[in-house]
Amino acid sequence: MTSALVQSPDIQKLLDQVSGLNRADGDERLKRLVRHVVEGLYSAIDAFDVTPEEFWRLVSFLQAAAPEFGLIAPGLGFDHFLDLRMDLVDKAAGVEGGTPRTIEGPLYVPGAPVTTGKARLDDGADKGETLIMAGRVLSSDGRPIAGAVVDVWHANSMGAYSHFDQTQSPYNNRRRIKTDSDGCYEFQSVLPAGYAVPAQGATERLLGQVGRHGQRPAHIHFFVSADGHRHLTTQINIDGDPYLYDDFAYATREGLIAPVRREAEPEQIRNAGLNAPYSKIDFDFVLTPAVREDETRLPSRPRVDHV
Amino acid sequence: MTSALVQSPDIQKLLDQVSGLNRADGDERLKRLVRHVVEGLYSAIDAFDVTPEEFWRLVSFLQAAAPEFGLIAPGLGFDHFLDLRMDLVDKAAGVEGGTPRTIEGPLYVPGAPVTTGKARLDDGADKGETLIMAGRVLSSDGRPIAGAVVDVWHANSMGAYSHFDQTQSPYNNRRRIKTDSDGCYEFQSVLPAGYAVPAQGATERLLGQVGRHGQRPAHIHFFVSADGHRHLTTQINIDGDPYLYDDFAYATREGLIAPVRREAEPEQIRNAGLNAPYSKIDFDFVLTPAVREDETRLPSRPRVDHV
Repeated sequence: MTSALVQSPDIQKLLDQVSGLNRADGDERLKRLVRHVVEGLYSAIDAFDVTPEEFWRLVSFLQAAAPEFGLIAPGLGFDHFLDLRMDLVDKAAGVEGGTPRTIEGPLYVPGAPVTTGKARLDDGADKGETLIMAGRVLSSDGRPIAGAVVDVWHANSMGAYSHFDQTQSPYNNRRRIKTDSDGCYEFQSVLPAGYAVPAQGATERLLGQVGRHGQRPAHIHFFVSADGHRHLTTQINIDGDPYLYDDFAYATREGLIAPVRREAEPEQIRNAGLNAPYSKIDFDFVLTPAVREDETRLPSRPRVDHV
Repeated sequence: MTSALVQSPDIQKLLDQVSGLNRADGDERLKRLVRHVVEGLYSAIDAFDVTPEEFWRLVSFLQAAAPEFGLIAPGLGFDHFLDLRMDLVDKAAGVEGGTPRTIEGPLYVPGAPVTTGKARLDDGADKGETLIMAGRVLSSDGRPIAGAVVDVWHANSMGAYSHFDQTQSPYNNRRRIKTDSDGCYEFQSVLPAGYAVPAQGATERLLGQVGRHGQRPAHIHFFVSADGHRHLTTQINIDGDPYLYDDFAYATREGLIAPVRREAEPEQIRNAGLNAPYSKIDFDFVLTPAVREDETRLPSRPRVDHV
């Protein structure tokens, strides 16, 4: 949708100039992409009669919002849109049967400690309810995969992540767990709470202006990888959360909502080595075979440093 | 131009959600604008097959580029586009005959010293060639306007601006000059040089990737205002600059290219109170009558502080 103004020879020439299309040097695809996006934005300015004052207020908002672009992107559905696009590509290629992918979010920290089989994720400081989550990593033919890596990270019972919340110890609720010879993983931690985008931050302001909230339901993030299999970026949601189907980041997907079983029988509690009722989640991850070597790797993305 | 994917019910629903259009609260126009822009960006991702890795590299680029958005905007022609749109609005309203507007740029500093009639703009430290610029502020019917304000700012002979270049004294080459009873202004300063966007900065990197440069021809910025007249934001270009018609910010306009006269006759030099040849520019500004009071004011825009 472009307006008469944007279609005028003057503006079409300006668009060729700003995108470098009238010059020999530079990246041809990027030039066409820049032209396409800038033409769309000029058209939006014209269609919505955006005044210069509004334009500069928007530029100023975006400048101040830059540290939160990693939240604004999922809030505007870009991460989910990219997932749905990759699903279509998979479908067209006949790739089926794996655990659904969902968004990474901006809070992964590389370099978490590695253990095999069972791991304790929390440092004991969080007095929330204990969570035990366990299952297997399977190939799409149902075979368990030994030595797969379940790289897990989640918020504490206050909805805060270690490394971003300085009150937590490093790598609290972050581990890389290698599956044992039966393809099993298990971890103990503390049931995470849902959380909201930072109060009074740019994301909250933007969402508020379009009548939205910035809440996420409680969830647990995973990268799951194994030799010969496609890397999986996903999350499980904890069933029953009031925002389960109203996630500001649109990460909730069928197949990723894990039922939570409350274990309160004394014998069960004792067997788990605990002294209070706890929550139990059973969940198997299913990986699809990789066709190319690069499919086995975590896609690159600027991530926070693991200091 | 939206793709089959973007037109699918799932993505159309996602767009309604991200823009808050499925909720009662919030600003209706902003919701529609957000939906329009985000749909355009989803479509661009689809049309250009932008990978998640490319998307996140772009987000990361924009985060790092935030301090330079005030340069990237003119570099992508937004400022010039807004000017051309305002020209059309003027034309439709029958407003004619004033000095052409052109972009403000990000380097204005409010609060420059005020003088009446004649001003010396530079502090004497710059050994470049002296410039004397003089003229009148006229109403569109040709009447001189006494007490009009010519708020002028320009780079030094190295292409650098005071307040952004810490080697210059505060408000060097920045003054507010009130026209005298004959509507005349005059100032002495040093002929400015053209300049480029910051080396290795985000703007330079972006422009380089599409085969462009970040050069601006030598120019002088003005806000001109007077009671009962529309505020004018403009620049004059100094004729003969190699980048005169190749400004990365697209600010050059017919009617704003000032001829420069070199004065080298001893008598002329003596009369000007100088002891070396100098450059002379004569330029009259023409203001159009204001219809509404808000047209007389400088449009608001986040600007640097005048510390």
